[in-house]
Amino acid sequence: MTQRIDKFVLKNGMVVLGEPMADVASVAFELALPCGASKLPPGAGGCAEVISDWIFRGAGTRTSRELMDALDGLGLQRSSAVGSALFDLGCAMESQTLSQAVDLYADVVLRPRLEADQFELSRELAIQELAGLDDDPRQNVMLKLHELFYPQPLGANSLGTTAELESLTTETAAKIIKDKFRLCDAIFGIAGKYDFAAVCEQLSKLFEDNSKSVKENYSYKLPGAKYVHHTHDGAQVHIGLMTPAVTLENENYYNARVAVSVLSGGMSARLFTEVREKRGLCYAVGASYHNLKQLAGIACYAGSAPDKAQETLDVIIAEFRRLSKGISGEEIANAKAGLKSSLIMHSESSSARSGGIVTDHYLLGRVRPLDEIKQKIESVTADSVLAYLRNNPFEHFTVVTIGPKELKVN
Amino acid sequence: MTQRIDKFVLKNGMVVLGEPMADVASVAFELALPCGASKLPPGAGGCAEVISDWIFRGAGTRTSRELMDALDGLGLQRSSAVGSALFDLGCAMESQTLSQAVDLYADVVLRPRLEADQFELSRELAIQELAGLDDDPRQNVMLKLHELFYPQPLGANSLGTTAELESLTTETAAKIIKDKFRLCDAIFGIAGKYDFAAVCEQLSKLFEDNSKSVKENYSYKLPGAKYVHHTHDGAQVHIGLMTPAVTLENENYYNARVAVSVLSGGMSARLFTEVREKRGLCYAVGASYHNLKQLAGIACYAGSAPDKAQETLDVIIAEFRRLSKGISGEEIANAKAGLKSSLIMHSESSSARSGGIVTDHYLLGRVRPLDEIKQKIESVTADSVLAYLRNNPFEHFTVVTIGPKELKVN
Repeated sequence: MTQRIDKFVLKNGMVVLGEPMADVASVAFELALPCGASKLPPGAGGCAEVISDWIFRGAGTRTSRELMDALDGLGLQRSSAVGSALFDLGCAMESQTLSQAVDLYADVVLRPRLEADQFELSRELAIQELAGLDDDPRQNVMLKLHELFYPQPLGANSLGTTAELESLTTETAAKIIKDKFRLCDAIFGIAGKYDFAAVCEQLSKLFEDNSKSVKENYSYKLPGAKYVHHTHDGAQVHIGLMTPAVTLENENYYNARVAVSVLSGGMSARLFTEVREKRGLCYAVGASYHNLKQLAGIACYAGSAPDKAQETLDVIIAEFRRLSKGISGEEIANAKAGLKSSLIMHSESSSARSGGIVTDHYLLGRVRPLDEIKQKIESVTADSVLAYLRNNPFEHFTVVTIGPKELKVN
Repeated sequence: MTQRIDKFVLKNGMVVLGEPMADVASVAFELALPCGASKLPPGAGGCAEVISDWIFRGAGTRTSRELMDALDGLGLQRSSAVGSALFDLGCAMESQTLSQAVDLYADVVLRPRLEADQFELSRELAIQELAGLDDDPRQNVMLKLHELFYPQPLGANSLGTTAELESLTTETAAKIIKDKFRLCDAIFGIAGKYDFAAVCEQLSKLFEDNSKSVKENYSYKLPGAKYVHHTHDGAQVHIGLMTPAVTLENENYYNARVAVSVLSGGMSARLFTEVREKRGLCYAVGASYHNLKQLAGIACYAGSAPDKAQETLDVIIAEFRRLSKGISGEEIANAKAGLKSSLIMHSESSSARSGGIVTDHYLLGRVRPLDEIKQKIESVTADSVLAYLRNNPFEHFTVVTIGPKELKVN
């Protein structure tokens, strides 16, 4: 994996990162603004989701209709995501339309029209999206799990509450855009086929400003183990479970990642084997690493028939606990093979890489070269994972269930 | 887009297709067997899903445990899918593990252990997966829509019914594997980094046999417009709607694809604009082309609050009908830009291409070069789409709803 990382910093502090990819015709970029769900003022929950729709309803010289036409005319494959800390605007395209796409996104971010009647429609859609979660207990249980596992406001659901959305005003939303779309604290990542000098020249013209960086030095702690059940008249009990883990900047990060893969990296992994293959307790079960900048955890989902849900939860917790008792060399080898193989697939997608370099810079202040990640994975051993687990046991489980039956966390 | 398509046919008739990709480290393959849901004997619905789990529970010299370890040890990113006609086994990996992966898949397909106790577990998991659909009305409404839109058995849900799964025996399942895993009618597609001569030599050693091709010359017709409502005590009415369209081998295929994109290709497309942006009727709405070998349609989904569901359905149907009244040059240009851009992204993924070449060969008997697809998209005009719609109007809607309120199809 030969790899070059381009970097440039605008005078205002906005960071521009690039990863050129050989022999691709596509390019993807992602602009991350410090306007995630946890950065909103109290009572304004859901506002970033409303904003993510509103700013596309007309910008610069273009009406909403004209802007949609201009974006689609370039064949952009768009994506927006409101995370805990960041609001990400991304798109992928054929490389020759890149500079036009960047011009349009500068309008959206810097010169949105923010018309009041359009705000009402954006807010109404967010209210409906939130209501729709009731019909998606699998997604809903994981959102409620993050809310319970992380301290507020870090784990906040990006859609807020219906009451918050209903009381939101255009003035509040416009002020949040003014305060939080700080270009000096923004990160722009690009991957695929591009000319970095041309990209930097264009971004300098469009995105230089006098914004002042806001350093936030809050210190957060996980609130600790808890169990909450939400009654829902459905076919299954949806189980979400989280336990603390180290963050990306911790030296034990790769030990934690390999530990999760031993639990849930493939068909041979323990959760799949013990819950699904041997006992047939449920069809869907899996765990994955989830991280914010300050805190991280291992999140597990399972959806089980009511009469098997208690045993499912018991077996999952037993498997999390049993991990520190011993791991075979073959389990470690399988986990590492899976992680390295995912890394290769990831490295071949311009969209995945433009997002990956932005996330790395936000969490670490630098981009990890793919070779470094590969070497770190390779250096993990059964002993290093077990040493990590002895000091950071999988315990203190936060559990949320949605379904017809409440469970016991034993 | 320079592109080479490799092709080789085994003596028994099994077709091997390859698409080499420059500068990637990954390779992906897909093996399609004529054992899709519509190919099963009456009463054996769901059997292909059970088989897709059962054959991985031990094969050749390996127990279930040993096989899982061997697959995960190679870092394979696995995928299996039971379609209407085909049962697809696929995986993506680092290229150097390709020949070991092919050896393992040959064991799974040719020498599965098919142990009775493992069968019970596979069947139990399928029953649970089917029960879980009740908690996923969005996915469920589209499965029920396909069942209603296509003639039986073409639109059959791959999970069958609970009654079918409960009455399934190991003998039936083993006989289906024997009858339907016909290598002479199988298609093997590979894309990414590989040596085609070596792949063909290995496949010839592993997959030559004396199977006899079964030509099926059934002729199917769409059953026609219908509306079915399923009462469900949820937050939204989930609407699924389908209307007939031409298949891939029809000369009007690209006109149909562009027509769907005018309706639902991007933010400027009509469904998004009329249902979501202007009226705020629902958060999720979209339409896409769906095809089998003999029949095809345009499938639309929307999830709406009960008090807005009737208007949502009315607006969707009005937009489908209005399309033949006129389409602007800008709408056509946007639709074409979106389709060409998707094609580029698709061309850069080894997994997407290994699946794409298999599907093309199954539907057309040949692989369409990407340049051909691009040129065909470029040659579409507003006039050609309108001429298509005059002869094949978007009418005769099949509609399924799941939710607290029944609607009227006006």
